[in-house]
Parts: sequence; structure tokens; C-alpha cells
Amino acid sequence: MIFSVFSDEHFMKEALRQAEAARLAGEVPVGAVVVCGNRIVARAHNLTETLNDVTAHAEMLAITAAANHLGGKYLEDCTLYVTLEPCLMCAGALHHAHIGKVVWGADDPKRGFSLLQKPVLHPKTTIQKGIEAASCEKILKDFFIERRKEG
Amino acid sequence: MIFSVFSDEHFMKEALRQAEAARLAGEVPVGAVVVCGNRIVARAHNLTETLNDVTAHAEMLAITAAANHLGGKYLEDCTLYVTLEPCLMCAGALHHAHIGKVVWGADDPKRGFSLLQKPVLHPKTTIQKGIEAASCEKILKDFFIERRKEG
Repeated sequence: MIFSVFSDEHFMKEALRQAEAARLAGEVPVGAVVVCGNRIVARAHNLTETLNDVTAHAEMLAITAAANHLGGKYLEDCTLYVTLEPCLMCAGALHHAHIGKVVWGADDPKRGFSLLQKPVLHPKTTIQKGIEAASCEKILKDFFIERRKEG
Repeated sequence: MIFSVFSDEHFMKEALRQAEAARLAGEVPVGAVVVCGNRIVARAHNLTETLNDVTAHAEMLAITAAANHLGGKYLEDCTLYVTLEPCLMCAGALHHAHIGKVVWGADDPKRGFSLLQKPVLHPKTTIQKGIEAASCEKILKDFFIERRKEG
């Protein structure tokens, strides 16, 4: 299969690399990148254990880093790629950021924001899901299987 | 009126002091404190403008600071006092933190999490609202009246 270098699959693979880095650090393996004009302006992975901070989800760190990089609070022209469907906290943050587009890999049927019937994201935000979904799911499932073995 | 030093009103006044500090810094005036065993373990106010970061709500910063102070991610034994009803992002974060109790002053009929019909906070979290509501509302209303005059 041939991917454009700027395809959703390409950027989701970059998010997956972040998830892999999280896994290696003993974190729940979720990764995210923020893309603006086909350029990655922020990369982040879950750091809740390392930072001892429940707010340190990949998306939250990526939003903060992207705003920092771009010098503006709002991310209207950006796309967030994240390996797992954002939770309510992250969806709320993406709303505040007026993010242009959100793309995720694996659905999160327990904690994903799309469980809510009311629209949570900003009305101008477009959504795409299921990009590299199998890989995005696998890295999480394997992590929890491994953790249960250890526990 | 006589308040116990450990009353909800007492701690909400501390949150209001934080809101006042936000106002003086040109931030939307929302303040929060986290209380554990009748002791304030974190104080924070909105810093979205200063930090150029939409995630820097008072509650988010207070959760991070409290976890840092206590050395644990979870805040089951803590109460968050906040001058304004938490938004969805902050409610999601409070869920992740397993916060014991949330007390707020002014309702936020536009962005408050309680607009949602589904429970957003952790099932063990208790909620109380309307503490010092008039003062909590006033500091916000005055701020936006002032801002509109300037604009």
C-alpha cells in the first residue's frame, strides 16, 4: 500500500510511535501529534505515571505544546492525531482549543467522549476515526495483557 | 454571621482570593483551592492568558498542584472549592482524580458540566454548589463588563 507522506495514516503512525514510547516508559500507551500545514508541531504521549498527574494525557500535553510552539492559544488550523478516542477531559480541552480536526485510531467504548449524546467538541471541529485502528488497539490491549500477567 | 474556620464558606473565600488574583493579572477571574484534612494543599487561578494555554484552568492547575503536594495521583480524601462550576474538561479531570468532593460557587449555565445528563464526575464524588454564589458570580460579571468597556 502506498501512503502519501501527508496522509492520515502517516501522521497516525507518528502518534503510534509516541504510544510506543509511552509503553516503554511503563505508561498506558497512548500517543498524539498535532499537525499544522502538514508539519508536526507537537508530539506527546501519556505521562500520568511519570508526572504523577491524572491530567497528563497525551492530548493535553500535545495541545499545550502546540500552542507553545505556534505562539497562539487556538488551534483552528491544526489536526490532532491520537491513537485512542479522547476522554471527556481531553475532548473539553480540544473544544477550548477550537481544534480544526480530530483523528483517532481506536475507539474507547468505556471513556470516549462520543458516548455522550451532546456535542462536546467545538462546532467547527471535524472528526475522523478508525485510522490505523488495529495497531492503535493492539498496543493498548497488549499493554494491559502484560500488566495483568505482572500483577 | 459566624463561620467555622473550616466551613465551606471559609474555603470558598480562599478560592475567591485566587479569583481576585486572576482578575488582577487580566485573567478570567476563576479561583480554586484543594482542601485535605481541613488544610489547603493547593491554590490556583486561571492562567490561560499568561500561559497561552487553554488547559490552564484553575481546577486543572489545582489538581496538578495537589497531587504534587500529596505525592499521589488520586484525591479521594480532598475537596475542590472553585468559584465557578467546572467545565467539561475540568469535570473530566476531577473524575480521573477521583476527587472526594466538589464545591462550587456560581453556576455556569453555558459551559458547566452539569448541563450533561450523564454523570461526569466519579461515582464516589459528592457535589455541593451555591457557596458564596453571589460573590463568585459578581467577580466574573464585573470582569466581563469591564472588558467590554475596554473593547
